[in-house]
Amino acid sequence: MRDLSARLKDCAVNTATLGFQATIEEVIDAVARAGFGGIAPWRREVEGKDIGAIARQIRAAGLGVPGYCRSTYIPAADKAAFEQNIEANRRAITDAAELGARSFVMVVGGLPAGSKDIAGARAQVAEGTALLLDHGKAHGVRIALEPLHPVYAADRSCLSLLSEALAMCEAIEGTVNEPWLGVCIDVYHVWWDPGLRQAIARAGAARRILGFHVCDWLVPTEDVLNDRGMMGDGVIDVPKIRRDVEAAGYEGFVEVEIFSAGNWWKRPIAETLSVCRERFATAT
Amino acid sequence: MRDLSARLKDCAVNTATLGFQATIEEVIDAVARAGFGGIAPWRREVEGKDIGAIARQIRAAGLGVPGYCRSTYIPAADKAAFEQNIEANRRAITDAAELGARSFVMVVGGLPAGSKDIAGARAQVAEGTALLLDHGKAHGVRIALEPLHPVYAADRSCLSLLSEALAMCEAIEGTVNEPWLGVCIDVYHVWWDPGLRQAIARAGAARRILGFHVCDWLVPTEDVLNDRGMMGDGVIDVPKIRRDVEAAGYEGFVEVEIFSAGNWWKRPIAETLSVCRERFATAT
Repeated sequence: MRDLSARLKDCAVNTATLGFQATIEEVIDAVARAGFGGIAPWRREVEGKDIGAIARQIRAAGLGVPGYCRSTYIPAADKAAFEQNIEANRRAITDAAELGARSFVMVVGGLPAGSKDIAGARAQVAEGTALLLDHGKAHGVRIALEPLHPVYAADRSCLSLLSEALAMCEAIEGTVNEPWLGVCIDVYHVWWDPGLRQAIARAGAARRILGFHVCDWLVPTEDVLNDRGMMGDGVIDVPKIRRDVEAAGYEGFVEVEIFSAGNWWKRPIAETLSVCRERFATAT
Repeated sequence: MRDLSARLKDCAVNTATLGFQATIEEVIDAVARAGFGGIAPWRREVEGKDIGAIARQIRAAGLGVPGYCRSTYIPAADKAAFEQNIEANRRAITDAAELGARSFVMVVGGLPAGSKDIAGARAQVAEGTALLLDHGKAHGVRIALEPLHPVYAADRSCLSLLSEALAMCEAIEGTVNEPWLGVCIDVYHVWWDPGLRQAIARAGAARRILGFHVCDWLVPTEDVLNDRGMMGDGVIDVPKIRRDVEAAGYEGFVEVEIFSAGNWWKRPIAETLSVCRERFATAT
């Protein structure tokens, strides 16, 4: 396992961690100044701006872009809305290419309004992902399905298990040497899964691990969406999961992503980045 | 699938649904008067009382007892505390026998304080369950492992998946014709699982389905513990899951269990029972 205390260049900051308090331009500077090697921006910070200029600033700062966050939810109540969702994702993938992102992160969406058909939602996700994979290949951007914790199954992601995401990858792309479709593994979503270790090994063997996100699960959790913890402050054995991910062959960025309305988002960006740096070294 | 509108005697009420507003004696009368066939009481209503008298009242009212809720959490920080947890459960199983309960419902517990070792917690659960199974057999009470939604993995149940619970049953008891160890399936905890249908079939084939709980997952959910919905008010396709459970051979009670601090627990017991009766017929 890599010694992250000596390899801050292997660590990336997902900008959501900083609570969107500053412009993307300011955040790029702050992340680079703090010594990190990568940044993962969100569409809300980028869309409507001069993306070429943002991409140049990121490159000039010496930062890599592990992923671009994140997809428009795919499942829809009718075909026209489904097509709109796919089209919005195609535009975002084009932007991801311009940003130099290694992957486009897919949070796939839950049940369409009024629906109880989770199998149907998953079928829409598979259909939509196949379409977006073609667009990603054409633009040089890999597609990373991110299974989300089952607590979000109804409203954010009908894709919950890592094993399920891998099965979808294989069903869509088949077995290939250089996959364009893979998974983003976030410890918050998968730490509890008794099949996690096996699924990580399978993902690594298929070369499908496209991203690795860290944070922590707090006890108690005040809010399952926006009360995530800094590595070391919760109950996830993050180093154990990282060891498995790296043993499976993953050599990409370790990316911190913390949604924390009540704590980290209220702190100055420089302070949060400083604590991230320390916790990468001591608790990741 | 059974037509519950014509078979209210196959329907049971878990007393938690009524918010513990009344004594168990009053609740037994209310549930029987409303026409249900079963009642599942909680230890907090029973312990310290004359259990024989409660059991006689339940029998005289013509009610069955699908399960007795619920186990003391098993995983502990040290051996002495573990033994105390097992001993508390042994006493509860003895009470379950006196109540005539068909099963003792096990909510197994999460991580001991300060621990990040979920595999270790699961090992404690397996060890403790084996001990309790012996006690259950000796007293004629089946042990029902209830996998809980992964949102509770840290603090309430390190056992999350139905497939995981079944694997534990088989590891402990082996393959037997008349198992004493099985599972309680609650739609709230497992509805999102892409492997649910397969796991239900497997549980049924092994004759290990000892209980079936219904309620609904609300969108949005205000509180993942105490904001559960009445069948039909959320996104779970309850009839679909019941069809699978009954196709797998389950013929026991369909039991409503709703934790709802903000809604159902505030209503008069008779009103909640009346709505349960209607929703068993129309949305279960």
